[in-house]
Amino acid sequence: MSKQNILIIGAGLCGSLLALRMAQRGFEVTLVEKRPDLRKVTQDAGRSINLALSDRGLRGLRLAGVEEEAKKLCIPMNGRMIHDKAGNTFLSPYSGRKDEYINSISRPGLNMLLLDEAEKMPNVQLIFNHACEDVDLENASATFRNYNSKEEITISADAIFGTDGAGSAVRKNMFDSHKFLFSFSQQWLSHGYKELEIPAAENNGYRTYKNALHIWPRGEDMLIALPNLDGSFTVTLFLPYENSDYCFANLTSPEMVHEYFNKEFPDVVEMIPNLSEEFFGNPTGPLGTVKCSPWNSFGKVLLLGDAAHAIVPFYGQGMNASFEDVVVFDEILEKYTFEENINWNNFFKEYEALRKKDTDAIADLAVDNFHEMKEHTAMEIFQRKRKLETAFEAEFPEEYYSKYSLVTFKESITYSEALKRGRAQDKAILNLLDDGKIKDEMSLKEKLELVKKETEAILHDDEVAGNLK
Amino acid sequence: MSKQNILIIGAGLCGSLLALRMAQRGFEVTLVEKRPDLRKVTQDAGRSINLALSDRGLRGLRLAGVEEEAKKLCIPMNGRMIHDKAGNTFLSPYSGRKDEYINSISRPGLNMLLLDEAEKMPNVQLIFNHACEDVDLENASATFRNYNSKEEITISADAIFGTDGAGSAVRKNMFDSHKFLFSFSQQWLSHGYKELEIPAAENNGYRTYKNALHIWPRGEDMLIALPNLDGSFTVTLFLPYENSDYCFANLTSPEMVHEYFNKEFPDVVEMIPNLSEEFFGNPTGPLGTVKCSPWNSFGKVLLLGDAAHAIVPFYGQGMNASFEDVVVFDEILEKYTFEENINWNNFFKEYEALRKKDTDAIADLAVDNFHEMKEHTAMEIFQRKRKLETAFEAEFPEEYYSKYSLVTFKESITYSEALKRGRAQDKAILNLLDDGKIKDEMSLKEKLELVKKETEAILHDDEVAGNLK
Repeated sequence: MSKQNILIIGAGLCGSLLALRMAQRGFEVTLVEKRPDLRKVTQDAGRSINLALSDRGLRGLRLAGVEEEAKKLCIPMNGRMIHDKAGNTFLSPYSGRKDEYINSISRPGLNMLLLDEAEKMPNVQLIFNHACEDVDLENASATFRNYNSKEEITISADAIFGTDGAGSAVRKNMFDSHKFLFSFSQQWLSHGYKELEIPAAENNGYRTYKNALHIWPRGEDMLIALPNLDGSFTVTLFLPYENSDYCFANLTSPEMVHEYFNKEFPDVVEMIPNLSEEFFGNPTGPLGTVKCSPWNSFGKVLLLGDAAHAIVPFYGQGMNASFEDVVVFDEILEKYTFEENINWNNFFKEYEALRKKDTDAIADLAVDNFHEMKEHTAMEIFQRKRKLETAFEAEFPEEYYSKYSLVTFKESITYSEALKRGRAQDKAILNLLDDGKIKDEMSLKEKLELVKKETEAILHDDEVAGNLK
Repeated sequence: MSKQNILIIGAGLCGSLLALRMAQRGFEVTLVEKRPDLRKVTQDAGRSINLALSDRGLRGLRLAGVEEEAKKLCIPMNGRMIHDKAGNTFLSPYSGRKDEYINSISRPGLNMLLLDEAEKMPNVQLIFNHACEDVDLENASATFRNYNSKEEITISADAIFGTDGAGSAVRKNMFDSHKFLFSFSQQWLSHGYKELEIPAAENNGYRTYKNALHIWPRGEDMLIALPNLDGSFTVTLFLPYENSDYCFANLTSPEMVHEYFNKEFPDVVEMIPNLSEEFFGNPTGPLGTVKCSPWNSFGKVLLLGDAAHAIVPFYGQGMNASFEDVVVFDEILEKYTFEENINWNNFFKEYEALRKKDTDAIADLAVDNFHEMKEHTAMEIFQRKRKLETAFEAEFPEEYYSKYSLVTFKESITYSEALKRGRAQDKAILNLLDDGKIKDEMSLKEKLELVKKETEAILHDDEVAGNLK
């Protein structure tokens, strides 16, 4: 096995898992994090406190032998609990198959677990409180500044991995280098987000149904809530920055905030006792998508996770995509690991050729789902479509996967395949419903066959026209 | 009329036309250019020497009263002259309508004309040799450095317009500001380009057919040539940077260059006497698409032309899109110009809301056409489609416009409408041909009706599914 020295910049979820896995593969790993050790210092104000963990993410944790420990931190969520303005609720299952659900998990809890496991390895060195100041992209060395002493250190390695998140300093070095053509895109939504908390009820009870992802879809705005183990829910408000009756630009007083919540989310108001304190105490965050290429520079430095492909949170796939990066990376490593001197340049190109189309796909799907969640979960045609798909999945579990299921539960197919097939299915069902071709008197099997046939026709037509692209 | 002070940064094609038009509207205009006055100093090595001017661009020139003068610089090109490897040629008309063609025009020639016209206005001040160093985005002032004396000057205005091209310094100020969310994307093709020259024959004769845009499509590579008034042609080679049998990375000797040209473009070799000198003497340029939003900052600074939306050259629409920017801008100005103090913030938002979807569309169409030109002009199904469309346009000139015609000749519809309808038509025809549904025994009118019906069905299905987005 290789004894090469590896430098990983960023000890968040992706960096910690990558460090653990590469240490298991025998590499000498140095893992450097800008912030303090979150096992010792509470932090992360304003970052999402809990996340959705699903099959692709679990596969990454399984690879490193930490799946079972991670599951102890999980709360299963079986579907979306839709709340209307009158306070009525309606559970929309994520799948018609009973064993398919997603999990709410604490971000710092999972990060701590991964750091603990990495630290147990004799060939992992953890360094906290050191911010990356500069990366020598051609020579695989990086300079860091100690947050306390302000001293600089430089670390050289055989290869560097940038897992330092959406605002990656490593990626910024690539963007600014001008020594190679770096395609780059950052796209902001017109909405920002703000976190609030529904505290636990007495004896760590839950103030609303525990095993669901709660959604209050309101057209332009949306509130969601995910459960925590202590009985609380972390609530996130998605709201336009400006140009709307209610927006971050005009919710400037406690009165306005209460007016807005009373009007749009009356059932939530009673569950958040400190609504306006939380609203004005917590930061407003932007929602952005970052894509770039190439992910590597000079065969020396590679970006992974959010540093390579930051996505908006609306598919609950951000962490899952990053963990799947590690799975794909490790599959290629399997081939290269017996070489004395790994040709990282070839390795990195192979990795990007295999992986980039899929992280592009999940980025686009996540933006689609932003619109779907805030608008369409409340629309009649969407609910008819969803009902039909849930019936297909329950009755014909091996024959039908909705777009959501393909993305979330079907880890054997890639995100890009899920996007292509899922969009074609959605287009087929919506048009068949719109044209009145799915009739009540048809059996469910007949409806399924019609949807499948129409889906294949759409894929075929796209392929013929796609030859033009 | 308004007497506001306007600062325009960048005196290329877009900036010069904008300066002229705003001066005609009564503004006090200062136009600052980084480079020397191109009417006095020859320059522009490596920049494209000639460009395609078509209806949208002509409309902008007409607006400023310079269309007739510009036409004197034009050489009409009626179609694409396709050259195969054996040296056979085949003319593919741009339109079935006789009066529809595009024009080859000298970039510096047109720029000189626009500068001359701007300079005639008493309310235009031209400043050359001053590079923009910094823009105060909130207070509408900019600092420039004199190339010769190295002295700095600062110019304040009521509004600033950044027309400083694809590598815009004004846009870079917006990107780096971090005071507002700036969506930005730069995407590079895997190909670069290099200009070469076919010199004039004796007595300023042309060595190949004058009135066409010549194309040598070769799958991955492509050569094109546009005529100049002096009898020469400007030739552009589009070639992958790397990972190809022939690419910029391996064409490193005169022998390799000649081997490549003899194999792929034998009929060109005899027309370029100094092939390898030109090849190694001229720079290799990258091909990039830039998109961004918002185009304005704080209602003080607005980007136009390539600074706001640089596109690849494969639709011949770069200059035309920039001139159309000025047309759209001027239409809005018409409404605002009678105000004593123009509310530029509202103006700029209105402009972007109207225009951005169209510059995004032409950017995407230009990338499509990159693939179409190098691959599909040589493909049988594409040639059948083209032949059918040309027949439609000749026989039913009011009823059918191909995607190319919609973009290039139909200035009454926007780029985004042209994209939507043009892609649907392409998809319809390719699928009808592929399925054998367009039969020889059908009349041309029957074929047209079938294509129209299928196009409408595609647009309808997309719209129903698009409600999901």
